Amino acid sequence: MFASRMAKTPKSFIREILKVTEDPRIISFAGGLPSPDLIDVPGITRAAGQVLAAEGKTALQYSTTEGYLPLRQFIANRYKKRLGLDISPEEILITNGSQQCLDLIGKVFIDKDDNIAIERPGYLGAIQAFSLYEPQFHPVILHEDGPDLSMLTDVLEKYRPKLFYGVPNSQNPSGITYSAERRREVAAVLKGTGTFFVEDDAYGELNFSGISLPSIREYLPGQTIITGSFSKILAPGMRLGWIVAPMDVMEQIIIAKQASDLHSNYLCQRIAYEYFSHTDLDSHIRTIRSTYGNRCRLMQDLIREQFPESIRCTRPEGGMFVWVTLPDGISSMDVFDEAIKEQVAVLPGKPFFIDGGGDNTLRINFSNSSEEKIREGIERLARVIRRLGIS
Amino acid sequence: MFASRMAKTPKSFIREILKVTEDPRIISFAGGLPSPDLIDVPGITRAAGQVLAAEGKTALQYSTTEGYLPLRQFIANRYKKRLGLDISPEEILITNGSQQCLDLIGKVFIDKDDNIAIERPGYLGAIQAFSLYEPQFHPVILHEDGPDLSMLTDVLEKYRPKLFYGVPNSQNPSGITYSAERRREVAAVLKGTGTFFVEDDAYGELNFSGISLPSIREYLPGQTIITGSFSKILAPGMRLGWIVAPMDVMEQIIIAKQASDLHSNYLCQRIAYEYFSHTDLDSHIRTIRSTYGNRCRLMQDLIREQFPESIRCTRPEGGMFVWVTLPDGISSMDVFDEAIKEQVAVLPGKPFFIDGGGDNTLRINFSNSSEEKIREGIERLARVIRRLGIS
Repeated sequence: MFASRMAKTPKSFIREILKVTEDPRIISFAGGLPSPDLIDVPGITRAAGQVLAAEGKTALQYSTTEGYLPLRQFIANRYKKRLGLDISPEEILITNGSQQCLDLIGKVFIDKDDNIAIERPGYLGAIQAFSLYEPQFHPVILHEDGPDLSMLTDVLEKYRPKLFYGVPNSQNPSGITYSAERRREVAAVLKGTGTFFVEDDAYGELNFSGISLPSIREYLPGQTIITGSFSKILAPGMRLGWIVAPMDVMEQIIIAKQASDLHSNYLCQRIAYEYFSHTDLDSHIRTIRSTYGNRCRLMQDLIREQFPESIRCTRPEGGMFVWVTLPDGISSMDVFDEAIKEQVAVLPGKPFFIDGGGDNTLRINFSNSSEEKIREGIERLARVIRRLGIS
Repeated sequence: MFASRMAKTPKSFIREILKVTEDPRIISFAGGLPSPDLIDVPGITRAAGQVLAAEGKTALQYSTTEGYLPLRQFIANRYKKRLGLDISPEEILITNGSQQCLDLIGKVFIDKDDNIAIERPGYLGAIQAFSLYEPQFHPVILHEDGPDLSMLTDVLEKYRPKLFYGVPNSQNPSGITYSAERRREVAAVLKGTGTFFVEDDAYGELNFSGISLPSIREYLPGQTIITGSFSKILAPGMRLGWIVAPMDVMEQIIIAKQASDLHSNYLCQRIAYEYFSHTDLDSHIRTIRSTYGNRCRLMQDLIREQFPESIRCTRPEGGMFVWVTLPDGISSMDVFDEAIKEQVAVLPGKPFFIDGGGDNTLRINFSNSSEEKIREGIERLARVIRRLGIS
């Protein structure tokens, strides 16, 4: 009855887990939500009132598929200021959150059994979105400084993938950031191949140091597609993201976007632009960086203090997640099950591995818990780990 | 470089035409916009203020894939009240406008070369959305009282299509409404086949008489998928629609929706629910019906008065469009080109015919023009028709 693609899409494991964690007594490190205290409700309320008062009839009417031009110009200007990138508003289309970018890329590029390369571990949302277009996935292992270059070279030569999908800044799930050198190397390896780099940059503004590393687009302008998100710096509930692509790709994306949902929520596009026009966004983002940086460092310190040395964890420089590797042979599903009994939730890492493995990995979110909850939650986790006899 | 599906998607002809009509001196009957004067800006402003004041942090955070439960309950209650249908909120998912329903249905059902049946002429948005999943389309001719039953029976027997897509109320583009009898007959023909009826009900609330005919779901509950839209009764710019499907289908739609964009704009879902909770929606819809009914009758009267008898036009009982058939051999593209010179725009009907034909048809929108503009626009069109020597 259903299309064959539906059988190939991984069951929504995170969805099921998040249901378990809805109990308010549970301290949840399982999700990936920004802190609600860092959403500027008064500022957004003011912007909404202003848009509806001044331009209500227009803001509530149908609009263009590409999105509100001043908002796209604002995004282009920010790329120039933050990364020195020259991007025209015509190369930018507003999406229904950055997840929709992945669906549009899948639609535009992927025929059944086409090859695509993806980091290992890889972002689950991308695995789900691309799976609906039935590609063959080829994993490229992620080290502390970025993708394994010889594995990437092999995959490119052997499979000539249409896309290589990666998250160079504070990757989900691992928290890893590509080094400046590795960015140049990845671009050099891709240059002249038929492979587009899909640079998912959901966390690019959330680097704790405030120092941005270059986008791959700087080295590969005609071969890079960037996806961006307002969910982490404005508000996820407004579902606003964007995609940046060279014009020949953008023409196809516009057709796919129109067929998918005509255009993104126009009222919220107008509110977002009005908000950014009257807000010191840099100052707001500094507050987010400092809050998340403190939570991240606290969580890492507590893990190193209270967990045995056999448990390793990454040292993220930004983003929202710490990635924990348990000793070989220990199942993170067992840790999840025991942790729920102690009313703390973590996310087993297995679904992020498209070729199996990762049974002993965990993703732990720090952005959505106060420092007090992080202290209490890590203590509970430490008890679970002792009880499981991990040493 | 691109997926093969992109080559199969019809060029966005309407998009190109609407660009031509952006000139404010042009009276445009080409688009499909609701009247901006019937968008309740003060009511929506009040609702937005209320939601942001009372629940801002929640309304701006991530939410569930299915959508805001009270809004889904509201939709279910309205089906009960308006059509006597028993639909549970679990059978309803909130989409990014009703166009997204068509994309989700394509994702969940259509494998490459699967057969699907569609009205002739058929809604262009559906043709575009489904084309991305590369089906074989089989047209079923639409008469004044609904689809041709023997053609439908033949298509079902010969091709066993997965879906039959139709718009029983005030179809786009033809304005045709299925008679009560034809609804029962269509359901009877479909019953027991493996074919789902996709009932696009974007205009169900816009019947001028206020008397609703039954949904096909009444006769085929397990075999009908309904798509609905708030664009015509609330505001298109909020991009809110919904899909109703039996639970086994809904489970697949939830997976497809999550992979596509996680969930629909939550802020606007909350604003819509708040708005409906404090608005006399029936009274608002009566105003819309009466305004559109007057515009539609005026347009038909003027067409019959000023156009030669050889030009036929449908008698819509609702919706937003009149459908005009020119004498054989007259090209509506010629009418379009000449009409633009007179600063009036109409939409040639050809793209609505998936198997060719329709060169002598035109779709004319009445919802987005005042009675004054309708008078002036039809006069200009009558001049064009005289100049082209149509008699």
